[in-house]
Amino acid sequence: MSLDHAATKPHEQLAAHLADGMEAVNTLIRERMASKHAPRIPQVTAHLVEAGGKRLRPMLTLAAAQLCGYTGPYHIHLAATVEFIHTATLLHDDVVDESAQRRGRPTANLLWDNKSSVLVGDYLFARAFQLMVEPGNLRVLEILSNAAATIAEGEVLQLTAAQDLRTDESIYLQVVRGKTAALFSAATESGAEIAGAPQPHVQALFDYGDALGIAFQIVDDLLDYQGDTKATGKNVGDDFRERKLTLPVIKAVAKADADERAFWTRTIEKGKQEDGDLDHALSLLHKHNALIDTRAEALAWAAKAKTAIATLPEHPIRQMLIDLADYVVARIN
Amino acid sequence: MSLDHAATKPHEQLAAHLADGMEAVNTLIRERMASKHAPRIPQVTAHLVEAGGKRLRPMLTLAAAQLCGYTGPYHIHLAATVEFIHTATLLHDDVVDESAQRRGRPTANLLWDNKSSVLVGDYLFARAFQLMVEPGNLRVLEILSNAAATIAEGEVLQLTAAQDLRTDESIYLQVVRGKTAALFSAATESGAEIAGAPQPHVQALFDYGDALGIAFQIVDDLLDYQGDTKATGKNVGDDFRERKLTLPVIKAVAKADADERAFWTRTIEKGKQEDGDLDHALSLLHKHNALIDTRAEALAWAAKAKTAIATLPEHPIRQMLIDLADYVVARIN
Repeated sequence: MSLDHAATKPHEQLAAHLADGMEAVNTLIRERMASKHAPRIPQVTAHLVEAGGKRLRPMLTLAAAQLCGYTGPYHIHLAATVEFIHTATLLHDDVVDESAQRRGRPTANLLWDNKSSVLVGDYLFARAFQLMVEPGNLRVLEILSNAAATIAEGEVLQLTAAQDLRTDESIYLQVVRGKTAALFSAATESGAEIAGAPQPHVQALFDYGDALGIAFQIVDDLLDYQGDTKATGKNVGDDFRERKLTLPVIKAVAKADADERAFWTRTIEKGKQEDGDLDHALSLLHKHNALIDTRAEALAWAAKAKTAIATLPEHPIRQMLIDLADYVVARIN
Repeated sequence: MSLDHAATKPHEQLAAHLADGMEAVNTLIRERMASKHAPRIPQVTAHLVEAGGKRLRPMLTLAAAQLCGYTGPYHIHLAATVEFIHTATLLHDDVVDESAQRRGRPTANLLWDNKSSVLVGDYLFARAFQLMVEPGNLRVLEILSNAAATIAEGEVLQLTAAQDLRTDESIYLQVVRGKTAALFSAATESGAEIAGAPQPHVQALFDYGDALGIAFQIVDDLLDYQGDTKATGKNVGDDFRERKLTLPVIKAVAKADADERAFWTRTIEKGKQEDGDLDHALSLLHKHNALIDTRAEALAWAAKAKTAIATLPEHPIRQMLIDLADYVVARIN
């Protein structure tokens, strides 16, 4: 990314501000994704790591550490850990979802095979744990290993909950905390912790990451029903076709009459979809204000993220994180 | 297991000697495989954990700790860690190998689906890391996280090496160290380390676990070609049919003439197998003494395991570990 054009979007501002650290993170990632013995590992990993995600999660770790005044070297390890856990999760997700595309490119399970995705994912998990051990900070180890368990638990819960009409907003929130927010909050919390920040600051940054992650996922789920394909790279209705019960549908199901319930049962629970079903689903979402209500929740979580860090000491990064929370929900404004 | 009938086979002697510890390990495993939110997790895990493996790996951790005079509580956590890593690996292996049976029962990927096996395996990996953090011993964390990386690396290496006739004995050894020996040696090394044993004792127990694991895997690969189906529960020739290049075939390939090489290329590399191929493969293994030579290597690794701990102080467990090394290769005598 050229610095001349940067500093427009909040994640680009952060990237510019944290450029040295992020370069060190990228170097460490490239170093640690290597394997002396198994050349397939760096092939598969490079395909994904270099596909150019925004590196939002490792940036959050660096931001939290720097915001808390950290001057040591280990936030780099934690940021790389967080990106490795994220990458491992993507590899396994694509196997579980039988996905063919990720970030506009064919998925690793398609280019190689499911076996490679499963095992290289395991390798990256293990490399993540090696990395997180290096700073020698037990509290950080607790935070990151707990996050890994919460992520996996959320993914398993989603397996059974996503096609079950009894899934309500509290179960949805558990799934979202697992699959998305747990790594955001671990990213910010571990950054604060390695900096030796006082407990209220650590908590504030945990709360920020948690709320930001939830807002991020709700926006994603909302855009699946009302997004602009060109802007999001996703097709409207993917979640519907894949029978994934997300917040908009959960809200519509909660207000459904008997006929509507039968429609959701057929299309989501039984997966018997016909032409015109997506249009009917969209009409039900509009009828019950499900998209408007979902949008309101995303905004509320973004506001919660901002409030969480409002009392932290003044710092340029604090403002960038506040802007980032606005930016995450700006896509639905 | 009733103690009355125990004390005949070395692993039963160990189990009897370590009965209290193993009960604590089993309790901890049951406790930690639970999930508040995702009921599928304990279902899948219980299916495998309670299928009644020998719990050889956690027993090795307890044995090493006790042999080194440990009296604290944390060898239990490390033993449960090792069993969780093992169970996670089995879940993922069965997906990768598309297996239908494990320990005489249908595999989890068959009873539920591949998705559940991948994600519950991830959950168990994460739970293993949470468990290993609890003792607060950084050296132990290094040992176990390095082992997890070596295991995954070995599995990925096997993906590409198993059907490649260029795979020689040194690559085979790397695969075996990864897929089997790394967890055996981490089990014994971490047990010694948590006990605060002097470095030469830690090294001796690492070497024992490493050599025992290699012997164990070579025996397994040998029995695939000359085992008694009733005794082993495996069918002769499974590895051949699954096109897995193991030590017996590697030895036969090394001595193959042009015709024989063409045979191995067709059956293993290209996987074009016909009736009578297994018999021909067996005749080539016999012709080149491949089974006899493989057996000799297994015995040599078992001897190496015994030598490694020969200089440790006299202790009843030391003798049991020596007997265990003999027992592991007794199946091929």
